Amino acid sequence: MHGEIDLSEPFDPDADTLREECGVFGILGHEDASALTALGLHALQHRGQEAAGIVTFDNDQFRAERHLGLVGDHFSKAETMERLTGMGAVGHVRYSTTGETILRNVQPLFAELEGGGIAICHNGNFTNALTIRQQLIRDGAICQSTSDSEVVLQLVARSREHKIVDRFIDAITKMEGAYALVALTAKKLIGARDPLGIRPLVLGDLNGAPILASETCALDIIGATFIREVENGEVVVCTPSGIESYFPFGKQPARPCIFEYIYFSRPDSVIGGRSVYNVRREMGRHLARESIVDCDVVVPVPDSGVPAAIGFSQESGVPFELGIIRNHYVGRTFIEPTQQIRTLGVKLKHSANKAIIQGKRVILIDDSLVRGTTSVKIVQMIRDAGATEVHFRLACPPIRYSDYYGIDTPVREKLLAAKYNMEEMRKYIGADTLSFLSIDGLYRAMGFEGRDNENPQFTDHCFTGDYPTPLTDLAEDHDFVRSPRLVEVG
Amino acid sequence: MHGEIDLSEPFDPDADTLREECGVFGILGHEDASALTALGLHALQHRGQEAAGIVTFDNDQFRAERHLGLVGDHFSKAETMERLTGMGAVGHVRYSTTGETILRNVQPLFAELEGGGIAICHNGNFTNALTIRQQLIRDGAICQSTSDSEVVLQLVARSREHKIVDRFIDAITKMEGAYALVALTAKKLIGARDPLGIRPLVLGDLNGAPILASETCALDIIGATFIREVENGEVVVCTPSGIESYFPFGKQPARPCIFEYIYFSRPDSVIGGRSVYNVRREMGRHLARESIVDCDVVVPVPDSGVPAAIGFSQESGVPFELGIIRNHYVGRTFIEPTQQIRTLGVKLKHSANKAIIQGKRVILIDDSLVRGTTSVKIVQMIRDAGATEVHFRLACPPIRYSDYYGIDTPVREKLLAAKYNMEEMRKYIGADTLSFLSIDGLYRAMGFEGRDNENPQFTDHCFTGDYPTPLTDLAEDHDFVRSPRLVEVG
Amino acid sequence: MHGEIDLSEPFDPDADTLREECGVFGILGHEDASALTALGLHALQHRGQEAAGIVTFDNDQFRAERHLGLVGDHFSKAETMERLTGMGAVGHVRYSTTGETILRNVQPLFAELEGGGIAICHNGNFTNALTIRQQLIRDGAICQSTSDSEVVLQLVARSREHKIVDRFIDAITKMEGAYALVALTAKKLIGARDPLGIRPLVLGDLNGAPILASETCALDIIGATFIREVENGEVVVCTPSGIESYFPFGKQPARPCIFEYIYFSRPDSVIGGRSVYNVRREMGRHLARESIVDCDVVVPVPDSGVPAAIGFSQESGVPFELGIIRNHYVGRTFIEPTQQIRTLGVKLKHSANKAIIQGKRVILIDDSLVRGTTSVKIVQMIRDAGATEVHFRLACPPIRYSDYYGIDTPVREKLLAAKYNMEEMRKYIGADTLSFLSIDGLYRAMGFEGRDNENPQFTDHCFTGDYPTPLTDLAEDHDFVRSPRLVEVG
Amino acid sequence: MHGEIDLSEPFDPDADTLREECGVFGILGHEDASALTALGLHALQHRGQEAAGIVTFDNDQFRAERHLGLVGDHFSKAETMERLTGMGAVGHVRYSTTGETILRNVQPLFAELEGGGIAICHNGNFTNALTIRQQLIRDGAICQSTSDSEVVLQLVARSREHKIVDRFIDAITKMEGAYALVALTAKKLIGARDPLGIRPLVLGDLNGAPILASETCALDIIGATFIREVENGEVVVCTPSGIESYFPFGKQPARPCIFEYIYFSRPDSVIGGRSVYNVRREMGRHLARESIVDCDVVVPVPDSGVPAAIGFSQESGVPFELGIIRNHYVGRTFIEPTQQIRTLGVKLKHSANKAIIQGKRVILIDDSLVRGTTSVKIVQMIRDAGATEVHFRLACPPIRYSDYYGIDTPVREKLLAAKYNMEEMRKYIGADTLSFLSIDGLYRAMGFEGRDNENPQFTDHCFTGDYPTPLTDLAEDHDFVRSPRLVEVG
Repeated sequence: MHGEIDLSEPFDPDADTLREECGVFGILGHEDASALTALGLHALQHRGQEAAGIVTFDNDQFRAERHLGLVGDHFSKAETMERLTGMGAVGHVRYSTTGETILRNVQPLFAELEGGGIAICHNGNFTNALTIRQQLIRDGAICQSTSDSEVVLQLVARSREHKIVDRFIDAITKMEGAYALVALTAKKLIGARDPLGIRPLVLGDLNGAPILASETCALDIIGATFIREVENGEVVVCTPSGIESYFPFGKQPARPCIFEYIYFSRPDSVIGGRSVYNVRREMGRHLARESIVDCDVVVPVPDSGVPAAIGFSQESGVPFELGIIRNHYVGRTFIEPTQQIRTLGVKLKHSANKAIIQGKRVILIDDSLVRGTTSVKIVQMIRDAGATEVHFRLACPPIRYSDYYGIDTPVREKLLAAKYNMEEMRKYIGADTLSFLSIDGLYRAMGFEGRDNENPQFTDHCFTGDYPTPLTDLAEDHDFVRSPRLVEVG
Repeated sequence: MHGEIDLSEPFDPDADTLREECGVFGILGHEDASALTALGLHALQHRGQEAAGIVTFDNDQFRAERHLGLVGDHFSKAETMERLTGMGAVGHVRYSTTGETILRNVQPLFAELEGGGIAICHNGNFTNALTIRQQLIRDGAICQSTSDSEVVLQLVARSREHKIVDRFIDAITKMEGAYALVALTAKKLIGARDPLGIRPLVLGDLNGAPILASETCALDIIGATFIREVENGEVVVCTPSGIESYFPFGKQPARPCIFEYIYFSRPDSVIGGRSVYNVRREMGRHLARESIVDCDVVVPVPDSGVPAAIGFSQESGVPFELGIIRNHYVGRTFIEPTQQIRTLGVKLKHSANKAIIQGKRVILIDDSLVRGTTSVKIVQMIRDAGATEVHFRLACPPIRYSDYYGIDTPVREKLLAAKYNMEEMRKYIGADTLSFLSIDGLYRAMGFEGRDNENPQFTDHCFTGDYPTPLTDLAEDHDFVRSPRLVEVG
Repeated sequence: MHGEIDLSEPFDPDADTLREECGVFGILGHEDASALTALGLHALQHRGQEAAGIVTFDNDQFRAERHLGLVGDHFSKAETMERLTGMGAVGHVRYSTTGETILRNVQPLFAELEGGGIAICHNGNFTNALTIRQQLIRDGAICQSTSDSEVVLQLVARSREHKIVDRFIDAITKMEGAYALVALTAKKLIGARDPLGIRPLVLGDLNGAPILASETCALDIIGATFIREVENGEVVVCTPSGIESYFPFGKQPARPCIFEYIYFSRPDSVIGGRSVYNVRREMGRHLARESIVDCDVVVPVPDSGVPAAIGFSQESGVPFELGIIRNHYVGRTFIEPTQQIRTLGVKLKHSANKAIIQGKRVILIDDSLVRGTTSVKIVQMIRDAGATEVHFRLACPPIRYSDYYGIDTPVREKLLAAKYNMEEMRKYIGADTLSFLSIDGLYRAMGFEGRDNENPQFTDHCFTGDYPTPLTDLAEDHDFVRSPRLVEVG
Repeated sequence: MHGEIDLSEPFDPDADTLREECGVFGILGHEDASALTALGLHALQHRGQEAAGIVTFDNDQFRAERHLGLVGDHFSKAETMERLTGMGAVGHVRYSTTGETILRNVQPLFAELEGGGIAICHNGNFTNALTIRQQLIRDGAICQSTSDSEVVLQLVARSREHKIVDRFIDAITKMEGAYALVALTAKKLIGARDPLGIRPLVLGDLNGAPILASETCALDIIGATFIREVENGEVVVCTPSGIESYFPFGKQPARPCIFEYIYFSRPDSVIGGRSVYNVRREMGRHLARESIVDCDVVVPVPDSGVPAAIGFSQESGVPFELGIIRNHYVGRTFIEPTQQIRTLGVKLKHSANKAIIQGKRVILIDDSLVRGTTSVKIVQMIRDAGATEVHFRLACPPIRYSDYYGIDTPVREKLLAAKYNMEEMRKYIGADTLSFLSIDGLYRAMGFEGRDNENPQFTDHCFTGDYPTPLTDLAEDHDFVRSPRLVEVG
């Protein structure tokens, strides 16, 4: 349920979690296109809480609403939906990374083209965006946003191809990295997934109207039928007369991001034919097999650790109990304590359920360990509540490498597992024992015998350092030559 | 975890739940009085989401902030706390009942008295408030709020006693019903609980500063020590020199509201020496003993049914699984679907976890059944997800009577169990079987052998119709004679 | 046009002007009662810019909207008017005095009475309000506002009379000071003016619906007919069957506030049969007769000095020119300059029209001199623009005494004419010559031969120190014994 | 004072006035650059009330704040100024034309250039912007705004020149129409005026820091020295080492817009060596010479008609009186009357000063006549107030042609003088007589003997139809071929 844990803590400045950057949704040929898009985005809200936007096309012009805030903050009124007329719509939810929470970055992005127009939504990260952006500026392009996503829009606008689909393919073949793109033109709904299928994208149908969405839960909320996943490297073009497929990169084995299973996707979504919830429970089962100790109770860190803890409990026979209670009101606002109060160790989000903890040997289950700052506090809270032993278990391997494909990980030096060895981590966290799920255990929970090191089944560089694409921007030192940017200061 | 479920759905207009009307908090003699009160109210947020207010006394004047919205919306900034200077503070969170969401009703209420002043916070409901209000108006009192709580303030102001504690006791001895009151004067923090102790109130201590709060979780969040519960019928007067107790009603057996265990209190709170979480899990265990059927999986309606489902699973050995996923973003805003979309059966708050449900015989556990409107939808959602059987189990007896002590129950005609017999309810809900925990099972979960019908241990009229106090206002037809009121329309 | 000058500078913290505290309006028996009240208040906006409120009675209940801000900010939408249903309405605009800008003080004030209710609007100031308030609190009344106006409402509620008109008269006969009151009950619209008629109140009619308003301009805006002024000491009771008059204080000579002519009323209003604009122009004419000097141009301080400057020009034959241009955008917000910029002498509100000023001997006309802080800057600005001489002329006598009847004057020590003699003032202001209109000149401009010192025709204590009523609160030292108050801090 | 009249009615939907589209300001080399720019924009507020923006450069990056609303709404706090760090700043105020009130159009516009960047502010209108915009889109440019001003920015970005000044000149030489441009780069402040100098731009100095502004009043407010006007067709480049001038179009006679004198500029501004106030007063004098009739009083339509009315009164000897009072509160909000109230003829903005009007023969002076809708109401109001005769006089010739250079005139069919002859206009307006200032009278008021029809001294096509530049966009039918646009709907 890690997807859910994000939901209520979008602006915690000391967040000790991973963040995905976006969710995308599109539909063509339905008279409630904008309302269905709002609902789809609501189901994808866990993928981004900074901003939300929808663009429709009403056969005359494109119509846009883009706002900072949650989907429900701005797209909940019938009158809003009535302004967003048209049978086609695309929408986007966005996660906030520091300093870029500005309206000009809110997607969908739009370009007027000769005789047409295109609105684009992007989930992922282009690893050569800065490099191409510099070239574009050299050639006279004006980039209004600071988002890497705008680069692909500029390439579409500048393509010398004539048909919109050819322009779109022309543009994406210049890009490196991870992406799920959904685009709306006057006549088409287009979807694309990067050559390795790192970021997810599924195809659905509602009474004949094709739908593209980041996860199946966005289909479920509106009662749409799941058709299939968009394949890695596939460009899907939906028109009223049907769906066409293009493979501009040729076919190759997929390598989707394993963190969608571990953390990002909603537990009721299905990816690659696997129930996300079941995978997480299996991770708990394998974790129990690998690192069970003698104990009294299995306690999840809510909500993220719950499915793994259920699996751990089922496998080990140790009772599952809610030993930590979560306050779901800790959301967009929180109380700034004075210094004196800070020393009281106030826990706004979690509180220990003493009746469960006191005098017990506790197995504490969380889904992953990033910087460790929250884990320290939680272990201490469990001890303060009277636990006699605290055994900390993580349902994935140690995160040792940063991500560049759309997951907001700290710089490497902030990753606890990059800094410390196992014993140092245990001491830092303050647990009696500390164990992570092994990399092969992780793959086993996915249904494999283990990781295929020749041809790894997933993108898993955060654990292994095995980055599956070039990292062009990282190789060049763009800071050195970059032009002055415009910063919106208020 | 029912306390939590309320948290994220404060404004759902079709709510099929019970609502409590308030949480109270007070502290005396701490230099961070207002910030500690804000934190305490944050921990009590599940008891009321409409409005929050704090009044402090800074040895010169009383200082107030009262706002519509959550605690975190208005009491999260250091600068707010700095405006609320003073070593004593009382605070209140309030639940919204239709038509009365106005600023003038937000507590604490305040009266300037000759040479002093008093701020009062009230959780509960006076069952003779209208009767006394009419008398007060006849005598020239001006009631600014439409809240029943103001009556006790007017009585304090009009008391002919000289000492503030005598005035306070003079006032409450005229009131009937259920109440936990916390009051701040220039020199004292006063707490009072109704003669039967229907509404909860606990006494705590933080480094010598006495604290009064609705639940122990408000002590835990600031690291305060739990001293004891305020007794039924007790008036507690805290001053810098110590705590005094008065029993103006004499001593009698307590009869606290059983719904605090079933629904209202946070699972990590302790009432009457019992862990709320443990009681709920025990209800699940007894429910399993009473009504187990052959099945594959135990699924809670989240978040309210979780502890009972854990107990049910532990007792029955049927696996506990998260078969329903909750979207915690459904909060203060929600998307108004068009009529066409409404027919799609969109579920904004809950979605079925198909991987768990499909092809399974499901035991569905919820904490209580009020109007049944939500239960119908959830059972249907489980069937749509492929369950072969759905057995609905409620962790408390049928609710057949309205409450008049501060719980916002529908009128009797809207209570499903007041309208229908068991089989009619089962058909309405659409379950294969339907069972409630028995009244004796409920008392057994509380640690008794059963209900003592001579001297019932708890206030349980919602199940039994056994109201423990007079209902004066109900007996008189106040609507008939009432004066025109002032309605704030914007 | 001084009434107008206030309009665009309601929140200037360094205001060097006088302020009135309120405007009142009421209407009975018109189906657009609330919208007409909003329009009437808009015409009276110059009398108070802090807050505005309207209460209607719709034969079932009283309906209220009270907001901080201008009339147009909150009462401009048709939907607002539709919420304020009913054929009777009263409304109020209020001026902000420091520290009391709180919602609980916004009028109309309301009291539910046995079998009825009353909403009251007050312009003026009771000079014994604190004294009575203390007695009320001693008797158990709860005062919700900090406004002196609430006292009269409490007295109405506590009156032992049975009929509402008798209660109202019972209450006002206990009050001292200046007031124009407009009240709405379930069946009546009531108006009252203090025994000396210090504050203004007029009676009008719109197609048979009686209207009460502070000034005639509020009748003009809705095309209503002016009937007559409410007399000093008169209580007017309007019902559908006609208008009745009561004189609870007996009859005595009126003594209206002369500042309504000099400053407060709108120039197009008519008071006591005199056009306010004409009176102001006559003041300018008499000022010219008293203090003409050799010069080139007559320049008003806009907008307040314009009518007097026109009169001065007409009498003297010296050309009237707009030598100072006013920026009407200086309103509710203004730019905080940094210290460095402050030294540039930035003038946000006024700028010199150099083409008119340069090389000229300028007569500068303003309506009155309060603290002098603005006058210093304006004289300097005129000099900087190249004037060879600056002769400052004020169209009223020196203000030497504070007001206690509803005009917000500075404490006496801040009044320039209370601190300095004529030559000291001239030096402070920096003018070549300085003259004020004489007190007899002022009375001559009103059509008299001069002030009748035996029976002065107007309330003119600001010039003469001749206060026409007891100042009870001032005589007692209320600060010493006052109880702690409640201060809304956010 | 027509400039002022705009100030308080920015959103009147039935406006019967002309509107200019912008004011510009720039400064280089002053440590309070942003605050001085805010003050300058405040002085230019009459030129645009929709939106305001400032961009600074702080030697590292450009910093922007752009908001809908008045300057004082968003640029009044010291903290805002502190965020806008840097020694160079440019700013813009913008007038709202229907449907385009969106944030993306708020200037300054910005383009990141290779190794640099440029922020541009534009007052005026390019008459070939649509034509060039289509070419740009064909070439792959993405236009984010719907503003014609963005075209020049795109041309700068795409110029093949290397130096920023050469790029800027390259861009403007492709544009037709009217413009005053102010641009900020990392090292320079650049100003440019169209070849005919249609739109105004002046050069000033504050302690060595060069300033560019639309009018001299923006220099006066900060105490800056007026240096000279930027010449027609001149590009001024300011750097810390001095000011350079370029004349890319060669030199030719100037032909500034005559409406700056009649209507737009503030009365205290000086253009072409003429005081705007004096010119307007002279128009009144010449109007009196041309069309005096026997009458009792000269009444201006405030505030726009005041200077001409003063001149008319001085020339004719007929007394000047404020016969119409203006309510300056009619600003951003106004009360929507119900239909019934609408028929009452409510005047929110103007009211007749009956004491001046009744029984009088009135000469009514306004600055110009556009659609005539307001004039009809004002004449009727004067008659209702008891005038025996109403003679309407306009201080400029009949407006018969639309503008395409930055003045928002109605389409030609809505211009009263384009539809009707003189007698028809008189009847429509309802005046006893109607006269306009002659075109030669207008030029005489400017100091000439009359209009030089061979080489007209001013741009005066609204009166004469003599457009001084090509109107390329108008010649082509762009609607026919335009691409779908993006419309921000919320």
